[in-house]
Amino acid sequence: MDIQQLKGLIEQMTLDEKIAQLLQLTAHFHEGTDNEGQVTGPMEEMGITESMVRASGSVLGLSGAQAVIDVQNAYLQKNRLGIPLMFMADVVHGFKTIFPIPLAIGCSWDTDLAEKSAEIAAKESAVSGIHVTFAPMVDLVRDPRWGRVMETTGEDPYLNSLFAKAFVRGYQGDRLKENPDRLAACVKHFAAYGAPEGGRDYNTVNMSERQLREYYLPAYKAALDEGCEMVMTSFNTVDGIPATGNEKLMRGILRDEWNFDGVLISDWASIREMIAHGAAEDDREAAYRAIRAGVDIEMMTPCYVRHLPELIESGRVDEALIDEAVLRILRLKDKLGLFENPLRAADPDREREVVFCAEHRQAAYELAAKSSVLLKNNGVLPLRADANVALIGPFAQSNDILGWWSCVGSKEDAASLGLSLKERLAEGKLRSAEGCGIDSMTQEQLNEALETAQNADIIVLALGEESAMSGEGGSRTNIRLPEAQLELVKQLKTLGRPLAAVIFNGRPLDLHGIFEETDAVLEAWFPGSEGGAAIADILVGRVNPSARLTMSFPQSAGQIPVYYNHFNTGRPMDPQKTEERYVSKYIDSPNEPLLPFGFGLSYTTFEYSDLKISGHEMKAGESLTVQVKVTNTGERDGVETVQLYIRDVAAEVVRPLRELKGFEKLALAPGESGIASFTLTEEQLRYHHSDLSFTSDPGTFQVFVGSNCRDTLSGSFKLI
Amino acid sequence: MDIQQLKGLIEQMTLDEKIAQLLQLTAHFHEGTDNEGQVTGPMEEMGITESMVRASGSVLGLSGAQAVIDVQNAYLQKNRLGIPLMFMADVVHGFKTIFPIPLAIGCSWDTDLAEKSAEIAAKESAVSGIHVTFAPMVDLVRDPRWGRVMETTGEDPYLNSLFAKAFVRGYQGDRLKENPDRLAACVKHFAAYGAPEGGRDYNTVNMSERQLREYYLPAYKAALDEGCEMVMTSFNTVDGIPATGNEKLMRGILRDEWNFDGVLISDWASIREMIAHGAAEDDREAAYRAIRAGVDIEMMTPCYVRHLPELIESGRVDEALIDEAVLRILRLKDKLGLFENPLRAADPDREREVVFCAEHRQAAYELAAKSSVLLKNNGVLPLRADANVALIGPFAQSNDILGWWSCVGSKEDAASLGLSLKERLAEGKLRSAEGCGIDSMTQEQLNEALETAQNADIIVLALGEESAMSGEGGSRTNIRLPEAQLELVKQLKTLGRPLAAVIFNGRPLDLHGIFEETDAVLEAWFPGSEGGAAIADILVGRVNPSARLTMSFPQSAGQIPVYYNHFNTGRPMDPQKTEERYVSKYIDSPNEPLLPFGFGLSYTTFEYSDLKISGHEMKAGESLTVQVKVTNTGERDGVETVQLYIRDVAAEVVRPLRELKGFEKLALAPGESGIASFTLTEEQLRYHHSDLSFTSDPGTFQVFVGSNCRDTLSGSFKLI
Repeated sequence: MDIQQLKGLIEQMTLDEKIAQLLQLTAHFHEGTDNEGQVTGPMEEMGITESMVRASGSVLGLSGAQAVIDVQNAYLQKNRLGIPLMFMADVVHGFKTIFPIPLAIGCSWDTDLAEKSAEIAAKESAVSGIHVTFAPMVDLVRDPRWGRVMETTGEDPYLNSLFAKAFVRGYQGDRLKENPDRLAACVKHFAAYGAPEGGRDYNTVNMSERQLREYYLPAYKAALDEGCEMVMTSFNTVDGIPATGNEKLMRGILRDEWNFDGVLISDWASIREMIAHGAAEDDREAAYRAIRAGVDIEMMTPCYVRHLPELIESGRVDEALIDEAVLRILRLKDKLGLFENPLRAADPDREREVVFCAEHRQAAYELAAKSSVLLKNNGVLPLRADANVALIGPFAQSNDILGWWSCVGSKEDAASLGLSLKERLAEGKLRSAEGCGIDSMTQEQLNEALETAQNADIIVLALGEESAMSGEGGSRTNIRLPEAQLELVKQLKTLGRPLAAVIFNGRPLDLHGIFEETDAVLEAWFPGSEGGAAIADILVGRVNPSARLTMSFPQSAGQIPVYYNHFNTGRPMDPQKTEERYVSKYIDSPNEPLLPFGFGLSYTTFEYSDLKISGHEMKAGESLTVQVKVTNTGERDGVETVQLYIRDVAAEVVRPLRELKGFEKLALAPGESGIASFTLTEEQLRYHHSDLSFTSDPGTFQVFVGSNCRDTLSGSFKLI
Repeated sequence: MDIQQLKGLIEQMTLDEKIAQLLQLTAHFHEGTDNEGQVTGPMEEMGITESMVRASGSVLGLSGAQAVIDVQNAYLQKNRLGIPLMFMADVVHGFKTIFPIPLAIGCSWDTDLAEKSAEIAAKESAVSGIHVTFAPMVDLVRDPRWGRVMETTGEDPYLNSLFAKAFVRGYQGDRLKENPDRLAACVKHFAAYGAPEGGRDYNTVNMSERQLREYYLPAYKAALDEGCEMVMTSFNTVDGIPATGNEKLMRGILRDEWNFDGVLISDWASIREMIAHGAAEDDREAAYRAIRAGVDIEMMTPCYVRHLPELIESGRVDEALIDEAVLRILRLKDKLGLFENPLRAADPDREREVVFCAEHRQAAYELAAKSSVLLKNNGVLPLRADANVALIGPFAQSNDILGWWSCVGSKEDAASLGLSLKERLAEGKLRSAEGCGIDSMTQEQLNEALETAQNADIIVLALGEESAMSGEGGSRTNIRLPEAQLELVKQLKTLGRPLAAVIFNGRPLDLHGIFEETDAVLEAWFPGSEGGAAIADILVGRVNPSARLTMSFPQSAGQIPVYYNHFNTGRPMDPQKTEERYVSKYIDSPNEPLLPFGFGLSYTTFEYSDLKISGHEMKAGESLTVQVKVTNTGERDGVETVQLYIRDVAAEVVRPLRELKGFEKLALAPGESGIASFTLTEEQLRYHHSDLSFTSDPGTFQVFVGSNCRDTLSGSFKLI
C-alpha cells in the first residue's frame, strides 16, 4: 500500500482502534494459543479489555510457525479492518542455531560472518513466524560488571558501528517485502543503556551530551544509516530523564536530527516504569511523557490504551501524534508485506527443514572458531597429537555454552567441549573430571580431579561462569571466577603438569588466579551451539585462533572503568618511573588493563615493519595512505588483524590516546609477507567539539599500526 | 588603596612587570632563603630570568615568620615599584596544630568547630608569614578509591556547602585588612576534581552540565557566597576540556554568571599540563587557553611569563586581559594590607607563643572527639574500668595519625593511641603489641600478639592505612585494609575474647574481614595532633561518640560508586524479593552500602516518634514545619544528629531517593526528650531542570526524619 492508502485506512479507524495498534502484548493474551484461563487473569490485572486485545497491533515473544499462524488467523477473523498482527521476538545471537554471544562475535572482527549469522537467524525466525527481531543491541560498554556486556560487540564506537550495520544487513537484507526470510531489525537500546552506573543493570546513566554523541550514539546511527526499521528505547535515564520519556533524545535527536521515521518501541514495561524512576506520578503522566517523546509502541503495560483517550479528549495530546504513530506501525506492516500475506514466511514444513539445519550449524561453527581469543600460550597449545590429556573443570562436560538470550536454542543440542575433544583425540588419550562445580567444591571432586590429572601430559582446565552469571539482570560486583574454580587451578598446579585453561563466560574477567598460574588461556566466551567443536578444533590445532579482544580485561574490579580509548590526563605516569607519586596512577595497581583492546594470539607469529605514511601533511578533502608490511614469522598459516589507530595530539576537546580507525585481515602462510593498506581522510579526524560541531582541528596527528592498541609502530602527519 | 590608585599603579608597570605578577614560584627562587646554588638551576631549567623572579607576584609554600620576613624584605629592596609578594601555602587541616582530616571534620556535622579549626589554622599560619591558604577543598566525592577523599567533607552537596562556608569564615574572618591573623581563602578545585574516573587521581571527569550544577558546583558557590577571595582550577578535564583552560567554566560560570572578581589561580603546573592533556601543542598555546579562560596566576610553570608578551604583540591576546588579572592580584594584596604592612602578621615572637599552643591543641582534641564514628558496638565499649586491655595492631603505638597534607605538623607532636590509653587505665591494665606491620606480618609479631592478648578481658585492635595510602596521589583499587591486618584480626579472633577495632585511615573502606569479626568498630580517621587522646577518651567512655558518616561505606570496590542520594531506577529491587532477576541489582552483592550516609552510633540510644508536618500542602512563598520528638532511651548523656531528608516523587528530571535538607543536634540526658524542628520552604525543593532552570515541580514530596538516611520516620506533602 502507498502512504495515501495507509492514511485512508487510518481514517477508517476509531480512536480506540488506533491506540490499540500502539499496544504490544505477549501471545497468551490472544486466541489461538493455549491460553485457557490465562487471558482473563492478565487482562484484568492489566486493566485492559478484550476489544483492546482484539485491536492490539503486535505480539511479543511467540514463535513456531503453526502457533503464529493460529494466532494470526484467529486475530484476523475478529479484527474489524483486517489489519494483521506483527510478531516480534528477541532473536539476539541466533534463533535455534545459536551463534557465539555478540561480545564473542565482536572479537572475530569479521563483519561478513556477523552478517551471515544474522541472515541465518532471520531465516530460522521467519519460517517460524517472526517478523521483527529486537536486535541488534549496539550499546557501547566500558564496564564488565554489567551482565548485558555479553550482548555488545565491545567498547569501541567504530567497531560497534561496523557490526551494527552488518547485523542490520543480515537481518533485513535488501527489500523486506520481496524477501520474507528476512526480519525487520530493531536497534537497541536507545540510548546509552550500556553505561549504567556501577555496572548494575537498569542503573542511572550520567554523561555529557558531547560524550553521548562522541562514543555512544554512533552505533545506533550506523544501524539507522543501514536502514534499520525500528528502534527500542532503553530502560535507563539519560541525564536524569528516562529514555522512554526523553523528548530531547527521541524527538530531538532521533526524529528531527536523524530523520528516523520508523517505529519506536518501548522496552518491556518501560513506559510505566517512569513512575518508579520518579518521572511520572501515575500511568497517565507516563503515557503523556512517552507519546510526547515519540514512542509508538508500548510493550506490556497499558498506559497508552487506558490513558491516551482522555489525554486526547482533554487536549493535552494532539490526536495527530497518534495518527503519526499508527502510520509508522502500519507502514512497517506494509513493508513486511503483511497486508498481502499475513502469514509471511511462517511455514511448518520449511520450519522443519530450515531450522538448525547443517548449513546453519556450519556457520555457527565457523563463527565460534573465529571468536575464541587465545590470551596466553607458552607453547603448550595446540595439544600434541600423542598427548595424554586431562580435561578438568565444571565446563569439561557442560553444555551450558549458549549464553544468555539464546532464544529457542537448546543446551541439549550443543556438544560439550569434552564430547568434542574426545572425538578428536585417539582412544584412551582423554580423561576427564569435573573437579568442582561452578562455585562449590567437595573433597571428593578434588580428589577425583587430582587422580585424573596426575599422569597427564597436559591438563586442560574447562572453567567459566554459568550463563546466568551474565545477561540481563546478571550484573556482578566481583568479576573473578568463583573461588572454587580458582582453588581448583591452585590444586592442579601442584601436580607440576602444563596447564591450559579454556574459559566459558560472558564478560571480561579479572583473570588473576588463572593467568599467571597457567601456560595457556583460551577465552571461549559462550560459543554457541557448535562451540564445543570449534574450541576442540582450536585445542588440537585444526583451527589457528585469530580473534582479538574488543574489550579490555581489567586488572581488578577496583580498576573499572578501563578502556583503551581513554585520555592521557595532565599527569600521565611514566612507565619508567612508577614510583613517582604525583602522577595519575594507583598505588596498588597498574593503570593499564591486564589485556588490552585488540589483543589476541595466534599459533603463529607476525612481525610488523616498514610503516609508511604517504605524506607529512593532509589538507581538507585530501587523504593519506598508511601502509605496513606484516610477515608470518612462525610455522603455521595464520590470519593477522592489522589495526590502525590515531591520536589527535592537541585539540579543542582532548582526544583519546588511541582511536581505532581501520583494520585489515591478512591471511599469511609461514614466511609470507603482506601489505596492509589504509586510507585516512580528513573526515576520519573529526570529532564533537564543545559546541557539538563535528569538525577536525589542524595540527599534529600520530598514527599507530599494530596487532593491538598497545603494540604498534608509529608515525605522524599534520592536518593543515 | 582604592581601585583608581591600583589602576594608577598598573599604568606605571611595564608589560613584563605586569605579566610577572601572574607568576607564582616556590621560595627557593628568591633571595633571603637559603638558596645558594638553587636559583640558577631552577631558573635555567624553567627558562625564566632573574628579572621575572624579581617582579613575580607571589610565593608558594614558604612559612616561618623570619623566613618570610627575609624573603619579603630582600624582594622589596629590588622591586622597582615596591609591590609586595603574597605568600601562599596549603594549610588544609591545620598549620602546626593538626586537626582531623576534612573527611573526619565532615563527620562531626559541626560547622562551628570546623570554623574554629580554620580560624586557628589561619592564626598559626598568619603569624608564620602566610597570607593565603589553598583551602577549603570542597570537592564532592562518591568514590573512596580516590586518595584525596580524605580532603573532602563528603558526598552531600548541602553538607559540603555548609562546611565550605564555615571554613571560609574561619580562615578569612570579617575584614582581612583589619584582622592580620586571618588568611585569604582559596576554594578548590574548580571544578569537579572529586569525580575522577576510576577514582584515579587527576583522571578524566565525565558528567553532564546539569549534574555538574546540581551536585558538584554548589559547594564552590557557597564558598564564594561567603566571600572567599580566591579560586583554584582543578587538574582534571571537565567534559573534555582541562579546567585550567575551560572558558565555559571559568569565564562563563565563575566570572560571568557568579560574578566572581577575585583571583583565579592554576593548580601546580596545570597550565603547562594542558600539553599532556592534549589540549595544547606547546607552552604558548597552553598560555593562550589559560589566559582566555581567565586564569590570573600561573603556579610553577613559565607559560605566561615566556609567551604572553608575544601573544599580546601578535594581537591574539588583548593586553586588557592582563591588566584585569593584575588588578585582581593587586586588589587582593591591598585587601590583605600588604601595601601598608608587607610583613602582615609575620612575627617570630608571636609565632613561638601562638603556634601549637595549649588552646589550639584543645580545639584539635575537641574536633577529634567529635569526628570519630562508632560504627558497631555489641556493648563492649566503653571499656570497663577494671578491664585488662590488650591493644594490638600497627597503630597501637603509631603516631602516623595526622593524615596527608599536614602542613608543618609533626608526627612527633602527636601521642599514639597506646600512650594516651595507658594514661587513662590503671597501672598494669594495658598490654600492647604490634601484631603486624601495615602490610606485613612475621610469625614473631603474631606470636607476641597472641601471647599479649590471650588473657586480656578485651582486645582493642588498632588498625589502619598509613597516611601515604590516601591523600594526593594515593589512590587505591583495593579499599580493604592490607591482608596482614585482616589476618591479624582472624588470628586474634581465635582467642575467643571480645574484639574492638579502632581504624585510622583516610577513606571509606570495605570493612569485610573486620566488621563481622569484631564486637565494636570505631572509625577514628586520621584524627590529628590530639587524636590519640580523643580516641582514648572515647574508648574509656569519657567521651560519648556522636559523629556520623558523610560518605557511604561500600560493600566492596566492585560496588563503587555507592552514595546515598542516588536515583530509584525504573526497576528498583524489592528488598523482600531479592531473588527476582529483572530488577536493578547485583547477583552477588546487596545494592545498599555496608554503612549508609548519616550513620553513627552512640553509647546511648535514641528513639524517634511523633513526626509532624505542619500542613498537607505548600504553595510557593510558603513554608512548612517538620517536627519530630527524640528521646534518649539509654543510660548516658548523648548528642543525636537528627537528619531531614526529602524525595520529590515525580519530577521533570528524576530526583534522588533521599536528599539531605537539614539537621539538628540534640543533647539529651538519659530519659530526656527533645523536639527537632525544621522549616521547609519551596526554595529547598528546587533543582536543575533539563533546560538548567532552577525551579521546583508541583506534586508530592516525601519527608524523612531520622538518625541516618536509612532509618527514618516519614510523611509527605504536596507542592501546589
